[in-house]
Amino acid sequence: MQNKNAIILLSGGMDSLVCTAIAKDMGYNLNALHINYKQRTEERELHSYNQICDYYQISSRLIVDISYLANIGASSLTDVNIEVTKADLENKEIPSSYVPFRNANILAIATSWAEVIKAESIIIGAVEEDSSGYPDTRSSFFSAFEKVISEGTKNEFSITIETPIIKLKKFEIVTKGIELNAPFELSWSCYKNNDIACGECDSCALRLRGFALASSRDPIQYSSNNER
Amino acid sequence: MQNKNAIILLSGGMDSLVCTAIAKDMGYNLNALHINYKQRTEERELHSYNQICDYYQISSRLIVDISYLANIGASSLTDVNIEVTKADLENKEIPSSYVPFRNANILAIATSWAEVIKAESIIIGAVEEDSSGYPDTRSSFFSAFEKVISEGTKNEFSITIETPIIKLKKFEIVTKGIELNAPFELSWSCYKNNDIACGECDSCALRLRGFALASSRDPIQYSSNNER
Repeated sequence: MQNKNAIILLSGGMDSLVCTAIAKDMGYNLNALHINYKQRTEERELHSYNQICDYYQISSRLIVDISYLANIGASSLTDVNIEVTKADLENKEIPSSYVPFRNANILAIATSWAEVIKAESIIIGAVEEDSSGYPDTRSSFFSAFEKVISEGTKNEFSITIETPIIKLKKFEIVTKGIELNAPFELSWSCYKNNDIACGECDSCALRLRGFALASSRDPIQYSSNNER
Repeated sequence: MQNKNAIILLSGGMDSLVCTAIAKDMGYNLNALHINYKQRTEERELHSYNQICDYYQISSRLIVDISYLANIGASSLTDVNIEVTKADLENKEIPSSYVPFRNANILAIATSWAEVIKAESIIIGAVEEDSSGYPDTRSSFFSAFEKVISEGTKNEFSITIETPIIKLKKFEIVTKGIELNAPFELSWSCYKNNDIACGECDSCALRLRGFALASSRDPIQYSSNNER
């Protein structure tokens, strides 16, 4: 039987790396979609994306520039004039790093590609509970988007959205990745720096806490004052 | 009472022109979003977009380039190597001018902008019955997308999708436009040419039939062999 064709959303971060490892383990034939929305760490993330693709021998790659989100603005991730806030993991407010409706933009692109290459699944490493409260990372959002796909695409076959780590906590994602020998050293999560991870932004803080709770050590390097 | 803030999807074509006329008539404060997906008539459509904005004194304008759809391909609208098929209005197949999932990409962008500028409505000139059978122009698709917006955005206020001409036939759109003094001479519908409308592509054929059935004359110029 031929392996099922799937699109993996691969930012180059830890979550999408572990999703790639899971999807490979499930036997999918992967096509890797990388979204550039002119976040300040784009160059570093793209490097990780390509290294992870090389590692998993994924030759079907698509890089899409949606820097229009930078023009639409209102986000510290895409506007260098807004300072990235330090992590406050107890804060239940939507953080300033929020890019409005980002995942819908990404899924729309993935679906267009899926229709062209006849992929049956779109795999995205969204994390509901352990994320920073973005409204478009919830299961209900992805279910609603699946309905949009079903209504808005040709009926030759259906396209499902798979969120294999959505219910996992960060330390469970780390554990899963270790179990599958995911090359964490190739991934990049920091929102702030391009060379050595800051260890202070939301994304670094969540990653470091995940490794700590998994009783493991993150192989990437952090600024010395945040070395764990 | 302050007028409600709305985003109008304005391609520069006849349908979006009439939608703009309707939205103005309803008293909306309009913000015009133009999508460039490197269709072969983009330059001409952009010219119409700006002229229509000028006419209706819309100063809030956003032009977004989603030419990644051209890279994803599989459409005669975006691939100059595929010949635009002549109209066959009886054909119930999805036409070759289909851009996969285009409206979802457009609505995702509109929603991101709506969240930033606090627009309560997104107005789109989709036409269900009289269109060429695109799956993403059906009412059920827009209802599904509204649900995605509700799930994937902040809960400060809701954003609705308005499709004021979705149930109209082309001649009814023409009639509505005439009633509201819409400047048809500023609009552009032809999929093929940038100077004089071809009169032969799907879009021209539908437009010309609409004017004929409305017992009216289209003020734009057509190639002499298609002059009506």
